[in-house]
Amino acid sequence: MAFHLLQRNRDGAQRLAEALLAAMAGVNHCERCRNLSDIPLCAICASERRDPSVLCVVENPADVQSIEQAAAFQGKYFVLIGRLSPLDGVGPEAIGIDKLKNLLNGGEVKEVIIATGATAEGEATAHYIGEVARATGLRATRIAHGIPLGGELEYVDSTTLSHAIACRRDL
Amino acid sequence: MAFHLLQRNRDGAQRLAEALLAAMAGVNHCERCRNLSDIPLCAICASERRDPSVLCVVENPADVQSIEQAAAFQGKYFVLIGRLSPLDGVGPEAIGIDKLKNLLNGGEVKEVIIATGATAEGEATAHYIGEVARATGLRATRIAHGIPLGGELEYVDSTTLSHAIACRRDL
Repeated sequence: MAFHLLQRNRDGAQRLAEALLAAMAGVNHCERCRNLSDIPLCAICASERRDPSVLCVVENPADVQSIEQAAAFQGKYFVLIGRLSPLDGVGPEAIGIDKLKNLLNGGEVKEVIIATGATAEGEATAHYIGEVARATGLRATRIAHGIPLGGELEYVDSTTLSHAIACRRDL
Repeated sequence: MAFHLLQRNRDGAQRLAEALLAAMAGVNHCERCRNLSDIPLCAICASERRDPSVLCVVENPADVQSIEQAAAFQGKYFVLIGRLSPLDGVGPEAIGIDKLKNLLNGGEVKEVIIATGATAEGEATAHYIGEVARATGLRATRIAHGIPLGGELEYVDSTTLSHAIACRRDL
């Protein structure tokens, strides 16, 4: 990319540099949900068409984008920007638990959907946030794990398969 | 493979041909579960250490192998060898529903875990078998679908993500 810009597209490089500088200067975190935003309160938090009673907690801004693209959720978000990882020195304060607690105590939220990743650290984070939500008297839910849709059993890993059988649902 | 065998391993080709012939002559379907077996009643159906009250219905013999490798299930199986697909002329009789009904009416089975694939045809088959099981008064369950374990939200397809949010569980 560097060679291409230096040899063939010096104007483009100039524009790219300016865009990057503008993004670094202008994009910060939403003061309510911690998502990336170029205004103090992001468009989702400010929207009156989103249901404030359901809060979806995700690890990263990219997760918000994925869920928005799936058009599967009409509530609001809270972005941890990370996940609990004691070995790396990431504790509750680094993932904004204080801010989350304030939000949960605000009275608007009735249900917390915990959509952290299905990794060991994501599960630990989910457990921790579940405790926080329950301590505030709110309903805490976890997104479903199992066989991905469109998937054939033959190509699914053993851990997911075990989980899918253990967590089967009544039809 | 053909060139390798012809040029370098004619003995191997001979042995492969004999093994294939032996398999074609000797491997048939288990008379109870329809899985591939070289004896009339397969090892799983004949085993007294497997719980006969839980029956896992899968599409293919390869699925039995996957679940066995995951060591997640102690019951018995029923292999459809296919799935309902009216457009391809595959109806209930082609996937052995009569045999399945006999098994369910036998009195030993209490729960039917439906582990067909998460495809459109797999879901239709699951629905059909669910009806059959309920008509016999048995508990019918479906394996869990959602985000695969170890998965990050960012890399999961939209359909699975929508389903995972819609089918969230209380923590």
